[in-house]
This record gives sequence, structure tokens and C-alpha cells, in this order.
Amino acid sequence: MVLVEARNPLNIGAVARAMSNFGFTKLRVVNPYEVAFREARSAMGGAGVLEQATEHNSVADAVSDCTLVVGTTAVRHRQLMHPLHSLSEAAKLMRAELHSENVALLFGSEKFGLSTADLSYCHWVLHIPTHKSNLSMNLGQAAAVCLYELMNACRDLPRKKSSKRVTAAQTERLSETLLDALRISGYVKDRTKRSTEEKVRRLVRRLDLEPEDAEVMLGMLRQIVWKLKT
Amino acid sequence: MVLVEARNPLNIGAVARAMSNFGFTKLRVVNPYEVAFREARSAMGGAGVLEQATEHNSVADAVSDCTLVVGTTAVRHRQLMHPLHSLSEAAKLMRAELHSENVALLFGSEKFGLSTADLSYCHWVLHIPTHKSNLSMNLGQAAAVCLYELMNACRDLPRKKSSKRVTAAQTERLSETLLDALRISGYVKDRTKRSTEEKVRRLVRRLDLEPEDAEVMLGMLRQIVWKLKT
Repeated sequence: MVLVEARNPLNIGAVARAMSNFGFTKLRVVNPYEVAFREARSAMGGAGVLEQATEHNSVADAVSDCTLVVGTTAVRHRQLMHPLHSLSEAAKLMRAELHSENVALLFGSEKFGLSTADLSYCHWVLHIPTHKSNLSMNLGQAAAVCLYELMNACRDLPRKKSSKRVTAAQTERLSETLLDALRISGYVKDRTKRSTEEKVRRLVRRLDLEPEDAEVMLGMLRQIVWKLKT
Repeated sequence: MVLVEARNPLNIGAVARAMSNFGFTKLRVVNPYEVAFREARSAMGGAGVLEQATEHNSVADAVSDCTLVVGTTAVRHRQLMHPLHSLSEAAKLMRAELHSENVALLFGSEKFGLSTADLSYCHWVLHIPTHKSNLSMNLGQAAAVCLYELMNACRDLPRKKSSKRVTAAQTERLSETLLDALRISGYVKDRTKRSTEEKVRRLVRRLDLEPEDAEVMLGMLRQIVWKLKT
């Protein structure tokens, strides 16, 4: 569970409590509001989870060892660049990976949710189907609902070993090398630099590569970049 | 939704918010801590639900017009006089009645849950399956999880989506353009030319691209090839 820029200590505490309720242990926080994180740590509930929570400066760092990175959004009709799944579909998609403990579920800040930049690190995005009159859930409650559904999905999972997956760090190396090639080639324009970078990140994540293929592609791109530079 | 002797205004507000998230409207509170109820009313979130919430002196009064009354408990092994169902079983049992809007779901106080007396008004009891290390959920989160599952039970919509696929011609254009870049870069060696070409073809096919992504990648590669040739 990765919380990006959470602002309210009660919410951080609530997320930790829901995690311990449903048997999840790894909490990572990216750029938390400092006071909130400290206050949450001193609160009751999911104390064990909070004590072990780690702090990170970037989403990339927080998810670097993960093989599947899933974002969350409240807004169904937002112009999303990602595949969008309802929570129950998402739980089915995530269950095979859950045993490897390398799945990251990202929640954004209470006010703004995840930014487009945050989402560019995600393979896809889930939403909890809510009523149109009030789409936006409280962070702690949304986390509880997601973890409940994930726990359910895990429980009726026939024990089956999942194939090795590409880590987020590998994917990021691939994205960066492709971007290098595109920068040198003039594909990346200054004016649209950011959106192109995000587009490339999303694209690479959609490829859903096997680890061997990721290595092969990285080798190809490195050779291309080398040639472009000579 | 019936809250019996809730003590924390934040929790009452959270329950109201989850109700509005999942399209439930009728909140009834039995002997709330007066201040808590007033504070919750003035809070944000599920304002509409809270405004219409009704106050009752007894569980009997709160559920008098209901045809099915379901209690909740965190404690799985408590000496219950009632049939106990997990939330997902419970949701199935309740769904037939849910449309008539005469189902009551009871939550007890944060500290003590429902008393044996409260439970005596219930037909049966549900529990949310939680991890043994922390069985007890926060009231607002437990309510959110229950309402999410009930909303799911209310509507089953089997949906299938067929996605557009990349044509073999597109895939081949992509393979060829990547190979062009690799040839110019010196990645393709004369001695292993054939096997490298096959490797690239297989790799590109394993990517299983969406048509739009295939076009974007083709554009990227063409730009790289153009630059390599200049």
C-alpha cells in the first residue's frame, strides 16, 4: 500500500488499521505531510503497520521493487490514459501477483488524488464503483474496501506459482532508455516534454513484458542510443 | 443502517459518507451520544444522509418497520445465539430483501459493539472476515466495507468487452522498423542475422499491443530510424 502525499493523520492511521485488519503489512508513504505522518505514528490501531512504514521521496522509489503497480481514482470519467477496472475486476487481476507481495496499490492525497505524473508509474487504474451523487470516498474507507476485496480474492486463490515478473525498477530503466533514444532523435519536443515522458512510461508499462524480454529490449535500446550518440 | 450508541462524531459522519458513496439513504441512530450526533451533523461528506437521519430511543423502535434485521460483530467466536454469516454470504442473503428497503443493518458502539439485548432484535449476525492479529475494525471502515458488498450484491451485471486487436500487417511493420533501427545500430550481427530477426518478431508479437499503442510505437521507431540515418 503506497500513500502519496496524504495530508490527514487520521486517514494514515485508518489505512494502517485496515491493513492490519485484513492481514497486509507493508505501508509506504511518499512525501507525507510531516506532521500528519508523525501524528499518525503515535495513534492507536494499526500501530505495527505504522511502525514499519517506510518513507519515500518519489513514487518511483516507493514502487521500485514491485512487479505490478495499480493506481486508484474516484473519478470515473476523468480523461484517463490508463486501462480502468472496477475493484472486483481489479482484485481478480491482482490476485495472482499478491502472493509474491510485489504488488503496489497507490492512493493519492485526500484533496487531489493521484496526479498524472503519479499515474504514469502505474500499469493500470482501479475505481470503486460509487453512487453518482457522491463519487468520492474517504481515504481510510476506500482503502478498507479495497483491502477487503483483495483479501477475499486471495483467499479463494488456488495456490499456483506465478511466473517471474519485471520489477518497477527494470521497467523504469527501459522507459528511461527509450526516452533517451527519443530525445536524441527529436521525438520529444520541449513544449510537450512532460506529457511525452508520461506517455512513454504508460506505454512501457502496458507492454507487460516478461523479465527476459525486458532485458533484451533494454539491450536493443542501449545499442540504439549508443549509435545515436556517435 | 442503524447505529446503536455510537460515540464518535467522526465515525457517524464516516458512516453517512459511505452510505452516500454506495447509494444508501436511511440512517437511524439509537441513543447517540448527543454531542457526537450534533457534531457529525455539522460535518461534511454525507450531509444529505445526516440531515435525514432519525433518532430513536430503542433498537425496537428503530427497526420497527423492517422485515429483516441483521446485526454485526467483530468477534467470531463469541457465544452467539444467532446464526453467523460472513459478509459475502450475508450480502447474498440480504439482496432479495434489499430492494424493498426494509432491511436493517445494525452496528454497535465503537467500544462494546452490539449488546446481547441489541442482538435479540436481529434475525442473524454477520461478520467481516478479518485477520486474527486485529479482528476489530473501525466503525466507519466496517460500514463502508459492508455497504460496498451490499451494493455489489444488489446489482449483478455481467459485462464483456471485446477489444480491437492489432493486425498482423501492423505487427510486421513494427518488427521491420525496429529491425531497421537495430541494423543501423549494429545490434544485428551478420552471423546471427536470421535468428536475431526471428527473435525480434517473436518479441514484438509477445508485446500484445493495443492498436493505438502499436501506432505510437511505430511513430517512435520511425523517428529513431530517421535520426540514425542522418
